[in-house]
Amino acid sequence: MNTFGTLFRLTSWGESHGPAVGGVIDGCPAGLLLDEAAIAAQLARRRTAQSLLTSSRRESDAVRLLSGLYEGRTTGTPIAFEVANEDAKSEHYAAIAGLYRPSHADFTYEAKFGHRDPRGGGRASARETVARVVAGTIAEQLLREQFGVEIVAWVGSVAKIGSSVDADSVTRAEVDRSAVRCPDTTAAAAMEAEILAARSEGDTVGGTITCVARGLPAGWGEPVFGKLEAELARAMLSLPACKGFESGSGFDGTRMRGSAHNDDFVRDGERITTATNRSGGIQGGISNGAPVLFRAAFKPVATHFQPQQTVTRDGEPTTFTASGRHDPCVVPRAVPMVEAMAALTLLDAALLHRARSGR
Amino acid sequence: MNTFGTLFRLTSWGESHGPAVGGVIDGCPAGLLLDEAAIAAQLARRRTAQSLLTSSRRESDAVRLLSGLYEGRTTGTPIAFEVANEDAKSEHYAAIAGLYRPSHADFTYEAKFGHRDPRGGGRASARETVARVVAGTIAEQLLREQFGVEIVAWVGSVAKIGSSVDADSVTRAEVDRSAVRCPDTTAAAAMEAEILAARSEGDTVGGTITCVARGLPAGWGEPVFGKLEAELARAMLSLPACKGFESGSGFDGTRMRGSAHNDDFVRDGERITTATNRSGGIQGGISNGAPVLFRAAFKPVATHFQPQQTVTRDGEPTTFTASGRHDPCVVPRAVPMVEAMAALTLLDAALLHRARSGR
Amino acid sequence: MNTFGTLFRLTSWGESHGPAVGGVIDGCPAGLLLDEAAIAAQLARRRTAQSLLTSSRRESDAVRLLSGLYEGRTTGTPIAFEVANEDAKSEHYAAIAGLYRPSHADFTYEAKFGHRDPRGGGRASARETVARVVAGTIAEQLLREQFGVEIVAWVGSVAKIGSSVDADSVTRAEVDRSAVRCPDTTAAAAMEAEILAARSEGDTVGGTITCVARGLPAGWGEPVFGKLEAELARAMLSLPACKGFESGSGFDGTRMRGSAHNDDFVRDGERITTATNRSGGIQGGISNGAPVLFRAAFKPVATHFQPQQTVTRDGEPTTFTASGRHDPCVVPRAVPMVEAMAALTLLDAALLHRARSGR
Amino acid sequence: MNTFGTLFRLTSWGESHGPAVGGVIDGCPAGLLLDEAAIAAQLARRRTAQSLLTSSRRESDAVRLLSGLYEGRTTGTPIAFEVANEDAKSEHYAAIAGLYRPSHADFTYEAKFGHRDPRGGGRASARETVARVVAGTIAEQLLREQFGVEIVAWVGSVAKIGSSVDADSVTRAEVDRSAVRCPDTTAAAAMEAEILAARSEGDTVGGTITCVARGLPAGWGEPVFGKLEAELARAMLSLPACKGFESGSGFDGTRMRGSAHNDDFVRDGERITTATNRSGGIQGGISNGAPVLFRAAFKPVATHFQPQQTVTRDGEPTTFTASGRHDPCVVPRAVPMVEAMAALTLLDAALLHRARSGR
Repeated sequence: MNTFGTLFRLTSWGESHGPAVGGVIDGCPAGLLLDEAAIAAQLARRRTAQSLLTSSRRESDAVRLLSGLYEGRTTGTPIAFEVANEDAKSEHYAAIAGLYRPSHADFTYEAKFGHRDPRGGGRASARETVARVVAGTIAEQLLREQFGVEIVAWVGSVAKIGSSVDADSVTRAEVDRSAVRCPDTTAAAAMEAEILAARSEGDTVGGTITCVARGLPAGWGEPVFGKLEAELARAMLSLPACKGFESGSGFDGTRMRGSAHNDDFVRDGERITTATNRSGGIQGGISNGAPVLFRAAFKPVATHFQPQQTVTRDGEPTTFTASGRHDPCVVPRAVPMVEAMAALTLLDAALLHRARSGR
Repeated sequence: MNTFGTLFRLTSWGESHGPAVGGVIDGCPAGLLLDEAAIAAQLARRRTAQSLLTSSRRESDAVRLLSGLYEGRTTGTPIAFEVANEDAKSEHYAAIAGLYRPSHADFTYEAKFGHRDPRGGGRASARETVARVVAGTIAEQLLREQFGVEIVAWVGSVAKIGSSVDADSVTRAEVDRSAVRCPDTTAAAAMEAEILAARSEGDTVGGTITCVARGLPAGWGEPVFGKLEAELARAMLSLPACKGFESGSGFDGTRMRGSAHNDDFVRDGERITTATNRSGGIQGGISNGAPVLFRAAFKPVATHFQPQQTVTRDGEPTTFTASGRHDPCVVPRAVPMVEAMAALTLLDAALLHRARSGR
Repeated sequence: MNTFGTLFRLTSWGESHGPAVGGVIDGCPAGLLLDEAAIAAQLARRRTAQSLLTSSRRESDAVRLLSGLYEGRTTGTPIAFEVANEDAKSEHYAAIAGLYRPSHADFTYEAKFGHRDPRGGGRASARETVARVVAGTIAEQLLREQFGVEIVAWVGSVAKIGSSVDADSVTRAEVDRSAVRCPDTTAAAAMEAEILAARSEGDTVGGTITCVARGLPAGWGEPVFGKLEAELARAMLSLPACKGFESGSGFDGTRMRGSAHNDDFVRDGERITTATNRSGGIQGGISNGAPVLFRAAFKPVATHFQPQQTVTRDGEPTTFTASGRHDPCVVPRAVPMVEAMAALTLLDAALLHRARSGR
Repeated sequence: MNTFGTLFRLTSWGESHGPAVGGVIDGCPAGLLLDEAAIAAQLARRRTAQSLLTSSRRESDAVRLLSGLYEGRTTGTPIAFEVANEDAKSEHYAAIAGLYRPSHADFTYEAKFGHRDPRGGGRASARETVARVVAGTIAEQLLREQFGVEIVAWVGSVAKIGSSVDADSVTRAEVDRSAVRCPDTTAAAAMEAEILAARSEGDTVGGTITCVARGLPAGWGEPVFGKLEAELARAMLSLPACKGFESGSGFDGTRMRGSAHNDDFVRDGERITTATNRSGGIQGGISNGAPVLFRAAFKPVATHFQPQQTVTRDGEPTTFTASGRHDPCVVPRAVPMVEAMAALTLLDAALLHRARSGR
């Protein structure tokens, strides 16, 4: 299933070492003056070779828009786009075609499909997230311009290093002050040191990303199966290496008493809001007008450079030592991916709500 | 959105204090001799008034099957079912129609729909999960009989009390040895004490549920947007009070190094499997043949019996003290709900895989 | 697939001789004061035993509404409903369980599902259209109250007898002046005579239904695959016994020259409209503001009372002579079914358009 | 809505005068050795500039495959493809940007979207059918190789000229013997004369296409809303200029008595089949094993070269005389489009049936 969304729909395609990756956006409202610079900016944040924290694969990631636009504005018809794969080095992968790399998708793709493209992880490569970022940035533009919603994500933790960030005020500029994309500067320094330490040992680390969406009205989300948290969880867990999602107080909240956990309703001028936000802006699966707040967990990168035990395609035990260009930690580059998937999810919820309510 | 699934589809309906709750299952394979006793057994585990740990609302939860069966076997046509609401006491709710209970869905349903049924939480009540359990138990039967898959969930933690359980061997009978549904008997005793302590203080607690599905073949799951973890996450977060999901090592895994986290492939007779299971049985969004393993977080029950600050529908501050029958902790009763949603998700993945592969 | 629609969705269930037929409507906007009398009126038009033109099966067709309403208004949550089967006489069908009735669905249901309910045609009976009429009448109410759209269908032909009706002005009251539901009174008399003649010979006849929807704005329909005509065609061909659909000039139009066929645009006050309506109100798959106009073809009823050659379930040749209660012609009763499916299709198109356009 | 299908899904994109048209196929089974020559052959049949019967626009229609293939075989991941627009002459269209061409989609696209691409009809151009033919030909290959199904379509009528063709035996080679694609050679000559006569008068004609699919097993189709005829009708009516669909005896059948219309079941060796095929191979919405047989109606081409009355975008009356390159009759080129949409529909039905039945 390579289509995401009900009304604003991204269909994604492409392998790591094919000629290109791309997508088709169906259901984009007409008349939008497309902000191509915003797309380029988010792709730049997703790109490899940004710093020592990322892989050295170099891609210009220029987006070719093929349809759905006339005189720079959307026409309501499908927007097709593609981004060339320029720096795919398939020779790095010749050695791995005959074995299954641990905690990669080599084995499962072969089990599922019988026939797979082993070059660079094929479809399982995070290269596919280019399409998510392109479509998600367009969704963000619509959310901002038509609904007043703003999305900011940042690295909340790397390995055991946490951070402290004010979700109500943090900006994307603050996030980008550090290469690791954590707006808590003390934490950011420690995170970067941790990533470089792992890298120097040929190892990798994991981390979490926190995301906030501010400005939503109360009323988005489609219970009981299309609850806003359910759709956000699905969106996040569809990202490469993502293994967890929590909304509001999440797993920590399970350790609290109800009397301490509840968010009291209070009046704020003409508006009803909550005194605290342990609900993460969502109650009963519907936005309550407070900031939507959630976290996503990303496992340590599976490709490290220490020797590993595995088996060949014939089931023979073998030792595998990775080569090539790989990120020591995925979370700095995953920040725009999380923003993109949040935007796709929230815009779809906005359109679904508008369809029935007329608002 | 009250339909779940692509090929095996549950459409759910009903409010807490309406005449009934129910659902329609579309896409059930024909010829299945329906195990009605299994459905009754899972509903009994979901039921209130099981013990002091649960609400005292008494429902017999007899399932009336209205279509899709002939001589006890499924015919491939929609299976409609309903379960009467017998013990709805709407007088308990007269007091709450004019205000918004903290951390409930009163406010968001009203914001979304304008007009809502306030009796017993209406559609936002966990009463709707009856339909999930009925459909999920039929899905479980198909998974067991046609695909050899077995699902077991249990309470992994209550408040700060964790547990230790062997996911490879635990049985549903072991789970049911304690009222709290934790197969670690020492932990279970502490959990029950914790719930009763909270209850005696008019308070509530949260917890987590762990779930394992054993016997899946490698190959289920539909990347990139229908990854098995993504679908499971969505299924869990659609449950009332669920605020988090993690697969395999989950959030803890983000604190590990890649060299320690990876699951080495090993040969086990004719089969290729993994030496460890930090992947939770899923790699690249596709099952790898190891047990599928995940956790879901449930916040403390929003209805406690201590006074709370909130506002009326007109925005006036008011104090609210709950009355009526409510669970002090939802997780013991949520165990069959988690199993049901897991079953619906996995069966759909199985059918999607079979459609294209013929297996 | 027993769900119809993307945003306003009907899930239908039930067999001819089961306890009931029914459905679930998901996505109905909240706040609608449900017009139950309108539902009863359309069901009465669909009902058997109205006249000598229809089957003598007697059903009161009282609708039991089970959810999604509070104080008579919709709440935006699923509306479940059921209608009991009261006059199912299964003994009539004992004789047919062992053979395949010609041009019925006995053989194909058995081929598809292996196990089927033979009583009264089971799921393949037109009894299932009760659910369509209930949901379609609610859709009609929304179309009328929120969008100013009015739908009228009538019998356009029976056997070789055609009719002449002004689609721009015809009313449902005019349609109901004759038992055959043709507003051309001369044609109606001939049609009724034809049906009674066939009936007296133990035979059956077919016919066509014409339908107009007036008051649509320009802009509904979702090309290229969700064109308004494509959705209407699918809706009609999903009705029992329907074997054809045409929009505007349809098959006759294929015999015309383009210069004679085109609809010139003209100005009508502030509005742009067309001088003629061979397009049937749809151009490029999108409504153009002129009345949407289409026809559906219904084959002669498969159950006649003359001896027929067929085979048993074992493939042995046998002679079959039907007994029981059957319509000699389905089109008079199919009028409200066509209106219902048109309403479901148009309302879904309206909501899809509003989602993206805000109008 | 630019996605077609549930399990084998085509997402289509592109405008007539944009850089390219294309599509993404999601859900294609893995391991298929793609028959690129078959795709090229069907595109050649769809192409303009084949003969005097078609437009003189010259496109090489070379397909660029961008993903989903490895070493020539499908990998089960999305297959993206694009076909460049080489001979778009936008200057022809400068004159039409300011008015609404009669019976074209200019007016409705503008009413729906507000902002449209007027060049060459934009998205409403039949140029988009390139994507349908590419995907449909892959679907055809799967149907042939995995399910033994063969599809043949031909021109059944042009204007008032009908034809006589044996649907049980006709081959694609026979269809292609005449430029007009009618295997009845006498009729073909008359059809060609009719088209050239219209052309010489600056006029256009309509026609019908008949299509047969042979070799289906009994059991495909998903009642009650996904009946095989309903899905085929939707597929056909989604084609540009299609205004009608009929299955089996269709509209003619409505004029018959039931006793004459029914298809008796007979035994044919081990198989049960029907003595006649007025059902068009479908009963109760499910294939019965006889050839699936249907017709689609195509209106006369809207662009003729005689002066027409219309209005400008401001509603001012104006006279319009078309220039540029246009087909005098669309049906010869629509033959592969009908085959493609039939293939997409039937393959999806096959996969849906296999998902639940395992066959």
